[in-house]
Amino acid sequence: MEMFKYSKRVPKDGSDAVGEILKAAADPKIISFAGGLPAPELFPVAEMKKATDDVYDENGKEALQYGSAKGVLKLRKTIAKRMLDREGIKTDPDHIMVSTGSEQVIDLVGKAFIDSGDTVFVEQPTYLCAIDVFKSYGAKFVSVPMDDDGMRTDALEEALKEHPEVKLLYTVPNFQNPTGRTMPADRREALAKLAEKYDFMVLEDNPYGDIRFAGEHVPSVKSFDKSGHVIYMSTFSKILAPGLRLGWAIADLDVINKLTVLKQSADLHSDNLAQYIVAKFFEENDIEKHIEKISQLYGSRKKLMTDNIKKYFPKNVKFSDPEGGMFLWVQVPGVKDTTKLFNMCIKHNVAFVPGVPFFAGAEIPGSFRLNYSNMKEDQIEVGIKRLASAIKEVLSEQTVAVNK
Amino acid sequence: MEMFKYSKRVPKDGSDAVGEILKAAADPKIISFAGGLPAPELFPVAEMKKATDDVYDENGKEALQYGSAKGVLKLRKTIAKRMLDREGIKTDPDHIMVSTGSEQVIDLVGKAFIDSGDTVFVEQPTYLCAIDVFKSYGAKFVSVPMDDDGMRTDALEEALKEHPEVKLLYTVPNFQNPTGRTMPADRREALAKLAEKYDFMVLEDNPYGDIRFAGEHVPSVKSFDKSGHVIYMSTFSKILAPGLRLGWAIADLDVINKLTVLKQSADLHSDNLAQYIVAKFFEENDIEKHIEKISQLYGSRKKLMTDNIKKYFPKNVKFSDPEGGMFLWVQVPGVKDTTKLFNMCIKHNVAFVPGVPFFAGAEIPGSFRLNYSNMKEDQIEVGIKRLASAIKEVLSEQTVAVNK
Repeated sequence: MEMFKYSKRVPKDGSDAVGEILKAAADPKIISFAGGLPAPELFPVAEMKKATDDVYDENGKEALQYGSAKGVLKLRKTIAKRMLDREGIKTDPDHIMVSTGSEQVIDLVGKAFIDSGDTVFVEQPTYLCAIDVFKSYGAKFVSVPMDDDGMRTDALEEALKEHPEVKLLYTVPNFQNPTGRTMPADRREALAKLAEKYDFMVLEDNPYGDIRFAGEHVPSVKSFDKSGHVIYMSTFSKILAPGLRLGWAIADLDVINKLTVLKQSADLHSDNLAQYIVAKFFEENDIEKHIEKISQLYGSRKKLMTDNIKKYFPKNVKFSDPEGGMFLWVQVPGVKDTTKLFNMCIKHNVAFVPGVPFFAGAEIPGSFRLNYSNMKEDQIEVGIKRLASAIKEVLSEQTVAVNK
Repeated sequence: MEMFKYSKRVPKDGSDAVGEILKAAADPKIISFAGGLPAPELFPVAEMKKATDDVYDENGKEALQYGSAKGVLKLRKTIAKRMLDREGIKTDPDHIMVSTGSEQVIDLVGKAFIDSGDTVFVEQPTYLCAIDVFKSYGAKFVSVPMDDDGMRTDALEEALKEHPEVKLLYTVPNFQNPTGRTMPADRREALAKLAEKYDFMVLEDNPYGDIRFAGEHVPSVKSFDKSGHVIYMSTFSKILAPGLRLGWAIADLDVINKLTVLKQSADLHSDNLAQYIVAKFFEENDIEKHIEKISQLYGSRKKLMTDNIKKYFPKNVKFSDPEGGMFLWVQVPGVKDTTKLFNMCIKHNVAFVPGVPFFAGAEIPGSFRLNYSNMKEDQIEVGIKRLASAIKEVLSEQTVAVNK
């Protein structure tokens, strides 16, 4: 019995499965590939301190006062410039809203577009927090199948014919969380065209796109958008510091203004001081050089991880080989119960996030996500070896069970 | 015609009336009593800079990394201690959630408790943003009448008998926005008892309670709560700096945990750096001394304003005489259309926020809110004189219209 009369939106007990996983993985004995943290050793603490001191000296009172719901103008100018240079998105500060982390954009877009019972398309699998958010607004999900090149736009068009009522499609086109997969340019162009043709909104979430350590940059879905159906979003969390909780959205003027009205009701505006600091940091430092350092480190950790997977895992195990980002995705054929594998891993002092919470519909059994961005090199080999032992033990237990 | 298929929650065009008012009031010729800003000349910029430098030196990496959804433990300890000392609320860090401004608590409480069609009780008038937020979750409102001592608990009990289905009551018991009124202890105790008896939640919003320049401190509603029906919320915006967007909620453990799950979906957590800075500021400085400085300044500005109101306004004008906070409330008998008065004021180069948006139901005609916290002394007399002229002009125009 519940003591208080919560709304229907409030998840019932036990829904924080991921919280429980991270709690189990927090034991210091455990090598945890479950997290999703950037490497803190690359946080530019000294440069941030200097930028902050300069903000206090030059704009102290403004930074501490209430500010604009859309965000600090100087920061929106910085974003507009980089979005053109980097993503081919022609925009200006009016079309940009600074958000309290990119999570807030997902929440506000859900609030702005989803009525209870509305259909939302997601990738199969997709970012788990997006599922939670859209669910809280009453979304019904359709999962669009993926291959090594991300969401299959042929499968998408099939799904659209069956579900022309779709309101929103959510995609992470670069180094997707959880799979690490990237959608090529032709699919992005096709997606933008389908959004116009079938009149639904696309939420393009690009937290990882800058962290590329192999292959070539692919233009954003938004850069192919001619009708205003694409909302682009990104964050400073992966290229600078997640603790500041600063992200942004770029959209058609009417859409961005509606999102801003909702943002005012959510938190008035994002931390002004943090916005001034980031704008100052960009003025005083070469962000591209900093991003290169991050990409190099993550690239070498990813390689170490895939090298060890090849060395220790059963040969039929499938895994993604991302060209950037923070995650790779493993699928072990024959594993029927990923939770059982997770529990076995905990016994072997290693952890991951099981695939289940990343699926809005049916899961692909035996799949899980590994994080390499925040894992010291010497721990990667040890951890993957432990994981390999756990996989072998679960597979052999299953065989015994079948033979009994 | 709308271009995009928004959800029913999105307000239709023209709903940002307050935005329009603030825009009109932003003309530098205009003396604006419309805002709600703290006085920036009292922001402790040097002390904040020192606290920030120390955070970078001592906890740089932690402050820039992802953090806990409930908030930085050190800050929650600081809050727990002050809540006991100051408000008589016995609590601990587990029962406290740090929020992105107190606005976020209103939003999350709305999300957690209000299903479409649910009844919410508010004061008549009440904080306008709370109306917008609850409306976005489909609330139906019942306005509880007030007198000079805030919400009338006798009228509340009448309303409860008529609306036993009420889910939530929202109140600002100290120096209410917009009226500046304060609820005495006996009414607070009665409110806490009624919440238990009729099984509804109380959201006690206390942004201004610390800024008292006259009279005696009154214990919080939460301090009378024996059944967990009261959620207490406050903010660092008025006692330190609103730009940081940091507030907090205190509630029953089950309630605070549910709010925290919803917060994770809203923005994962609030700015970690800002949380470390505020905790450090409290460690290094005497906040009570700082609050005293703020209270003294606002008290003298309030006195200047009421002195000039007495001197220049028509004698039958009613106005509140707050013992703290940032606002006072005026009601001009005989004014039928407050928008007309507002437009006349703009012609006279002075501005306020008209009463209308503060009412969830029928407005009290001729009422408006004046802010004194962020107004230089020499401007107060000039502004009130202009307001007096505008009032007289509107009243005489009305008389002419009647006599025609």
